[in-house]
Amino acid sequence: MEMMVRRIEEVRERIRYARKKGKVIGFVPTMGYLHKGHISLIRRAKEECDFVVVSIFVNPTQFGPSEDYNRYPRDIERDKKILQDEKVDLLFVPEVSEIYPEGYKTFVNVEKYSEILEGKFRPGHFRGVCTIVLKLLNIVQPDKSYFGWKDAQQLIIIKKMVEDLNIPVEIVGCETIREDDGLACSSRNVYLNREQREKALCLYKALKRIEEMIKKENVNDCEKLIAEGEKVIKKEGGVELQYLEIVRISDLLPVEKIEKDVIVLGAIKIGDVRLIDNLRIE
Amino acid sequence: MEMMVRRIEEVRERIRYARKKGKVIGFVPTMGYLHKGHISLIRRAKEECDFVVVSIFVNPTQFGPSEDYNRYPRDIERDKKILQDEKVDLLFVPEVSEIYPEGYKTFVNVEKYSEILEGKFRPGHFRGVCTIVLKLLNIVQPDKSYFGWKDAQQLIIIKKMVEDLNIPVEIVGCETIREDDGLACSSRNVYLNREQREKALCLYKALKRIEEMIKKENVNDCEKLIAEGEKVIKKEGGVELQYLEIVRISDLLPVEKIEKDVIVLGAIKIGDVRLIDNLRIE
Repeated sequence: MEMMVRRIEEVRERIRYARKKGKVIGFVPTMGYLHKGHISLIRRAKEECDFVVVSIFVNPTQFGPSEDYNRYPRDIERDKKILQDEKVDLLFVPEVSEIYPEGYKTFVNVEKYSEILEGKFRPGHFRGVCTIVLKLLNIVQPDKSYFGWKDAQQLIIIKKMVEDLNIPVEIVGCETIREDDGLACSSRNVYLNREQREKALCLYKALKRIEEMIKKENVNDCEKLIAEGEKVIKKEGGVELQYLEIVRISDLLPVEKIEKDVIVLGAIKIGDVRLIDNLRIE
Repeated sequence: MEMMVRRIEEVRERIRYARKKGKVIGFVPTMGYLHKGHISLIRRAKEECDFVVVSIFVNPTQFGPSEDYNRYPRDIERDKKILQDEKVDLLFVPEVSEIYPEGYKTFVNVEKYSEILEGKFRPGHFRGVCTIVLKLLNIVQPDKSYFGWKDAQQLIIIKKMVEDLNIPVEIVGCETIREDDGLACSSRNVYLNREQREKALCLYKALKRIEEMIKKENVNDCEKLIAEGEKVIKKEGGVELQYLEIVRISDLLPVEKIEKDVIVLGAIKIGDVRLIDNLRIE
């Protein structure tokens, strides 16, 4: 049977059939241009579920007007091959008009959570993310849905939305997958030229330095920790630090002293390439 | 078995059991203080479904700060008796803290549709309505959910939300139920004293006059129709007309000339009692 479908009605029909056979449905929403991070989500879903659905949709409503929606990397044939090798059961690749038909008007927002960190630099981004994720969850109606910790604020906001709106799904967070040198896998890494690729590592280095200070040097003053992290990034040169913050995992609120379950989040810009990363301190 | 439950988990458990037995689930969300209008929704649900769930929840997020949330009429014992007589299968009466626990942050909005007509006089109202309806639909997961045409803008917005967000439910609109003299049934009618109760009818009279002009006198100029409707209300005296508009049913946009499928909507205030009504011209 053809793995890839383009229409919502086809997805519903396939899922109805799988559900009727008692299968547990796992869902991995993606924007495509799949990398090792996506594959780890899919493998986790394959382990825990009987029927795994992957969607590929570069969601226009989560990009700002000056952002990289048009140049976001796409290669559906390559992605399809990867998903066939992973034995994914269903691939949903909708057209934009299938998801946002003319006259579309409904948006979901997790207030406060969406306005800080990434939200400050990408206004409207999480409103777009929440809306597409809610739509896809309503279309697929999975038992479990998988997201990477790489986009930590996104994962925390989606968990909050699911809890607040009583959506009957379990959200599973999966560890960030990194290149050998530590750079977090991202579809946007393809934008980096060789020199930028080397500079890009400074964000991870700053996060690791902060982790080391907390765990080995027992520093718990966040101001001091952040200052040290910023130093690591400044030393690199040619890198714009957009934010570097230590917040609680539960509600994304900043802390002054290290406490249980915090996360260090950062975003940098190298030329016009924007990269994010984070480390949880649990 | 006890018909009334207060916790989300209890609802889910009961519904899971009914669903397992292959029952079609019907859902009627209400704010309680049930009248003939609610009963007509419940009877329609009983006709079309095997397991009928009613919720009673005076939803704080759909009331403005100066509105009647606190004095909104409540009589759960009377309501419960009515629902027992109607042989409703499950009654969900959550506490506010069960629906909006501390730190609640997620809201749904149907843009444009929510800003006009009622939305102009009740900013944030439909954001609250959409949010509670989406939550209840996620909790109950009904096959069909029933709403009255009495709250026409609400019905149109909920249909739009369900369509936009791909929510797997059928929204059924049921005809407005009226008192013998034509006044639309509303829980808020209890606020009216005898003199106000008589004045209240002028809105329905204005709507009927407009309908008569369209159907019998072939008037199709909306400005003229509205002017005539306003005259009916002004003649009454002591009634504040908040709006009287003719819009398309499909998208609530105003029309200049009568076309297929329009609706005449109005809101009046008598003392501090606010009443709405409408007539579809199909």
